[in-house]
Amino acid sequence: MHSWVDGVAQSQVGLNNRGLAYGDGLFETIAVRGGRPLLLDRHLQRLQWGCERLALVADVRQVRDEVLAYAAALGEGVLKLILTRGDSPRGYAADPQAPARRILQASPLPGYPPSHSAEGVQLFPCRTRLAEQPLLAGLKHLNRLEQVLARNEWQGSAYAEGLMCDLQGRVIEGVYSNLFLIRDAVLYTADLARCGVAGTLRAELLEQAQSLGIQVKVCDLTLQDLANADEVFVCNSIYGIWPVLGVDALRWSAGPVTRKLQTLACALLDL
Amino acid sequence: MHSWVDGVAQSQVGLNNRGLAYGDGLFETIAVRGGRPLLLDRHLQRLQWGCERLALVADVRQVRDEVLAYAAALGEGVLKLILTRGDSPRGYAADPQAPARRILQASPLPGYPPSHSAEGVQLFPCRTRLAEQPLLAGLKHLNRLEQVLARNEWQGSAYAEGLMCDLQGRVIEGVYSNLFLIRDAVLYTADLARCGVAGTLRAELLEQAQSLGIQVKVCDLTLQDLANADEVFVCNSIYGIWPVLGVDALRWSAGPVTRKLQTLACALLDL
Repeated sequence: MHSWVDGVAQSQVGLNNRGLAYGDGLFETIAVRGGRPLLLDRHLQRLQWGCERLALVADVRQVRDEVLAYAAALGEGVLKLILTRGDSPRGYAADPQAPARRILQASPLPGYPPSHSAEGVQLFPCRTRLAEQPLLAGLKHLNRLEQVLARNEWQGSAYAEGLMCDLQGRVIEGVYSNLFLIRDAVLYTADLARCGVAGTLRAELLEQAQSLGIQVKVCDLTLQDLANADEVFVCNSIYGIWPVLGVDALRWSAGPVTRKLQTLACALLDL
Repeated sequence: MHSWVDGVAQSQVGLNNRGLAYGDGLFETIAVRGGRPLLLDRHLQRLQWGCERLALVADVRQVRDEVLAYAAALGEGVLKLILTRGDSPRGYAADPQAPARRILQASPLPGYPPSHSAEGVQLFPCRTRLAEQPLLAGLKHLNRLEQVLARNEWQGSAYAEGLMCDLQGRVIEGVYSNLFLIRDAVLYTADLARCGVAGTLRAELLEQAQSLGIQVKVCDLTLQDLANADEVFVCNSIYGIWPVLGVDALRWSAGPVTRKLQTLACALLDL
């Protein structure tokens, strides 16, 4: 399906786009099934939060309408939404009133091996560490060189994802997923106040786990916490949940809490 | 003058360009006078170093030839060179062999008030702090949200530049300049091993100051070092050197070392 720029079919942007010049913008990657964008409210909540923190001028209701129309036309696939701080002449200074530019792109749903969900995955231990930047932490912004470097540390299919720590060695997330661990039936995930991307499925799991009677804790996590975990999984809003079987010398198997949350994720994402 | 993409006149890039998607690339901003790109070897050295660190595949001799041809046609202005990791489908993984895409753009030389050089400037004390990321430190990469946030902390002409510290409070640089201070006739500038952009004029000054008999020290700098400085200046390869007159409650005046280096910078940049 053709891309849209500001609601018009278009496959290019001008060279003065601040997304290209400075990574000055945000994005969302949304699963579309049966013409519906899944977890849309969560995606738009994060987008709105990002616009406020970066002072991007966007009408999120208009974005919502466009995403709904695009998804209906797409039917099934991945909808990528990029918001950039429009175009500008050279220089970091921006017109504070300039409306954000909206880009919508489609790609096929990725064909991950079914064993990733059914059995689990190995994580590659990335040497690339996440920097601490509280002003950007949690946002899905366009400054993603850390993820590019981390993802390109491994090739081939032995590893489905990578484990990323911050510069202090805290366990944060995957390269394109959030990470959870379970210890004594409590669900833990990293506090993302200093770095990391606050995933939409992560937010949904944190909210719904409590109503499933699972106690939840968001806090700093160490490699020792990972070593002590009973279960570990990664998740995102495209593939749902993959149990983690190992990273480096550590080994786990898919356990009951992971399976319970997997059922929830499959329902949320029509998997 | 028209922009070039991979050597061809063009004003747009495709939406799959990784510069737009992830800020996955590098840039250089080069002053052009009399058809010549100034400090070209320094710019290309930094570009080469960036390509090695980001594993970008680029033929820097080809880039050099294109920059020379573009500058000759431009005559006078600012040449902006962007290298991105080409186009790719959605996802952080990149083809390790994909050649970098070359973008050349022209803009007029900025019309800064002559008093910035002659008398000096006030710095805005930016609240935005630089994150520590040794893998990216020094590079002029396309992930520039910190600079965008910092530059947009002030409006108007009372401040010509901003002072940026890292998250530990160390004094690092300006938003689009490097910063030097002079104390007891020794020239100091921040070590950029954790964050900051290693400017081309900075590199030139560090090298040439020693041959002018000025002792040079690259090290961590604190606000106390700034408070104790006899002279402070900011510099970049477009405007040269501006003496710094003040930031917050601190005050300096343009001194003899600054003036000596200003003469050098003016010669290097045809100012």
